Amino acid sequence: MIYFDNSATTKPYKEVLDSFITVSSEYFGNPSSLNALGGQAEKLMIKAREQVANLLSVKQSEIVFTSGGTESNNLAIKGAAFMNKNKGRHLITTSIEHASVRKAMEQLEQEGFEVTYLPVDSDGRIQIEDLKKVIRKDTILISVMHVNNEVGTIQPIQEIGECLKKYPHILFHVDAVQAIGKVPFSLHGNRVDLCSFSGHKFHGLKGTGVLYVRESVRLSPLLAGGGQEQKLRSGTENVAGAVSLSKALRMTLIEGKNGIENLKRIREILRKGISELEEIQIHTPIDHSAPHILNFSIKGIRSEVLIHALEEKGIYVSTTSACSSKKKSPSATLLAMGVPDEMAESAIRISLSYQNTENEAVAAIAAIKEASEHLRKVMN
Amino acid sequence: MIYFDNSATTKPYKEVLDSFITVSSEYFGNPSSLNALGGQAEKLMIKAREQVANLLSVKQSEIVFTSGGTESNNLAIKGAAFMNKNKGRHLITTSIEHASVRKAMEQLEQEGFEVTYLPVDSDGRIQIEDLKKVIRKDTILISVMHVNNEVGTIQPIQEIGECLKKYPHILFHVDAVQAIGKVPFSLHGNRVDLCSFSGHKFHGLKGTGVLYVRESVRLSPLLAGGGQEQKLRSGTENVAGAVSLSKALRMTLIEGKNGIENLKRIREILRKGISELEEIQIHTPIDHSAPHILNFSIKGIRSEVLIHALEEKGIYVSTTSACSSKKKSPSATLLAMGVPDEMAESAIRISLSYQNTENEAVAAIAAIKEASEHLRKVMN
Ligand SMILES: Cc1ncc(COP(=O)(O)O)c(C=O)c1O
Ligand SMILES: Cc1ncc(COP(=O)(O)O)c(C=O)c1O
Repeated sequence: MIYFDNSATTKPYKEVLDSFITVSSEYFGNPSSLNALGGQAEKLMIKAREQVANLLSVKQSEIVFTSGGTESNNLAIKGAAFMNKNKGRHLITTSIEHASVRKAMEQLEQEGFEVTYLPVDSDGRIQIEDLKKVIRKDTILISVMHVNNEVGTIQPIQEIGECLKKYPHILFHVDAVQAIGKVPFSLHGNRVDLCSFSGHKFHGLKGTGVLYVRESVRLSPLLAGGGQEQKLRSGTENVAGAVSLSKALRMTLIEGKNGIENLKRIREILRKGISELEEIQIHTPIDHSAPHILNFSIKGIRSEVLIHALEEKGIYVSTTSACSSKKKSPSATLLAMGVPDEMAESAIRISLSYQNTENEAVAAIAAIKEASEHLRKVMN
Repeated sequence: MIYFDNSATTKPYKEVLDSFITVSSEYFGNPSSLNALGGQAEKLMIKAREQVANLLSVKQSEIVFTSGGTESNNLAIKGAAFMNKNKGRHLITTSIEHASVRKAMEQLEQEGFEVTYLPVDSDGRIQIEDLKKVIRKDTILISVMHVNNEVGTIQPIQEIGECLKKYPHILFHVDAVQAIGKVPFSLHGNRVDLCSFSGHKFHGLKGTGVLYVRESVRLSPLLAGGGQEQKLRSGTENVAGAVSLSKALRMTLIEGKNGIENLKRIREILRKGISELEEIQIHTPIDHSAPHILNFSIKGIRSEVLIHALEEKGIYVSTTSACSSKKKSPSATLLAMGVPDEMAESAIRISLSYQNTENEAVAAIAAIKEASEHLRKVMN
């Protein structure tokens, strides 16, 4: 099996699963219980929080454990909007965000907020000049993803942060779900107020995530209740989930130290090999893109058809983002980048992890070549 | 170890952990991915949903997997309130709900909704007559817990359902987190529109839960995004979590078939033994209470003190609800039942599971007697 769908989800590290089981079976107390079993569970939560905070170079009190990237994004965006609605009701985002940002924004539009969606260029990047033009007195939040999940484009987070230094009252949220461990990034240096992460995208478990919330930032919680997670996210803590996430994050950041160069090599092999095929368009830009994503279209061959052909050869790739893949409409990201409908309907996303190898890339190119030639023959 | 804190959380069944690991390691695809690995994961989600639906005798489309009881309660209450705000803005609940209901209601009060909190009698039960009096033309939702998590009182869910038959437009939400598997209950026969469950309360895993949403009921989602879970709860599905919850639910319902009588016997031993101690008040009513909870106070001995004394003997009990236990203020439930402050500050909750035995009850009584006599001596 060649697993090239790591932006949809990754295989959990064995060590992550081991910790999950140990914590779930031996330290199963409720961290809020006053008895010793509760105390043990609470200590594990504290340790997991400490480790995640250290790995991200932030304070422990700034880490909120959530159930995943979607929850982190919704909590950041709706939590900030509802908390600050008396200061203003204007929000800014881009036209290529993940559905969990886009739909949260759409819900807020129904609640009386106004949202500006920044356009992107043919590389899928926003222009700082465009951003500057749309900032208003009543702007309360800007949400921009770090790495796009479909094409891998990196947004100018640092420049946005620079620009926002003049607007200290505007909150800046970054969806770093696809970036963490793949693109060097500092929360500290970048005037980021809120930042979303998802465990299962870096070999952690589904149902685990983190929202970084800068110390002074207040949010209206989505999940109100017992007051866990600094009152920002109530509910009995998924202790084993938090421990497993902290382990996955540590392991992935360690792997990234040497792995990023390796990813770049693998992706270069893929880019070169695939660009030599007939009637190809590669959507992932050469500059400003994360090393683990390559998105391309083969003219006339619809995404699903190629996906299933490759799957028969044991190669797993995706269309666009996993959660939009069943909607049958072409990727909004590609359309925003100016890709014609017909090409967008043929988009294939290869997404790598540190477990992938150069040999897999070579094998995949051969398989894509063979499959596309075969499909062309059948269709003619 | 005698674990008597099962209303705070339970030890996961070994089989539940085994399924979790198998699914997480072997079927780790994203159910939304079009490739075969995604397809396998999707099939597991469908099977888990089918099993939970069958066990609850409802339709598959009525099952929404969530991250726990707190999320289920927040989604039900805020989701219903926001969706129906144009029909009315009056909500009804009780004065002894879990924090995840109470705080969700308080948030809605800040958003312009009006909430009526029904009083309870000395057994912790609401009166149907009180409910009838407060229903208004603009009432859109009634939320009542089935079993109280602190004292175990069972609310008259069936009678509330009967009463609501005259008001088809009012949604009825039941927090069944403490009831499932312990108190016989039918969603179908009881005009319930929304019902919350939490995996870790019945030997499933923390971070897993279910919200039952009757077919025709529409909610505004808390987590917007990719549209998973019938668009009511977006986010990459915690496939292994859903499978593990379906397994835990099946096992706990099977155990309950014979186990409930056993629980009753164990609780009777505890009630009798504890009531013979000096200066005791038992808060859990004899009638209308779930078989797994016994709440009592020993006059003059504060909860934390007795908890730690028992913990030294290897017996784990709780104060009130786990998530309020660190707040140091006496239980709102006990105060609402008319228990004096001083007694409420001494409240101890024993909560059983099907794994507990009569011998443990006998040992616990002896330990409580010894500890309380010792503490009294020390304090005098
Ligand atoms: C950029 C981005 N943001 C958010 C998410 C949502 O994360 P999760 O699947 O953990 O809800 C994803 C993946 O689905 C993503 O790629
Ligand atoms: C009655 C009741 N409702 C809701 C909850 C919240 O469930 P969870 O801990 O899964 O968020 C609990 C337990 O904490 C409870 O006892």
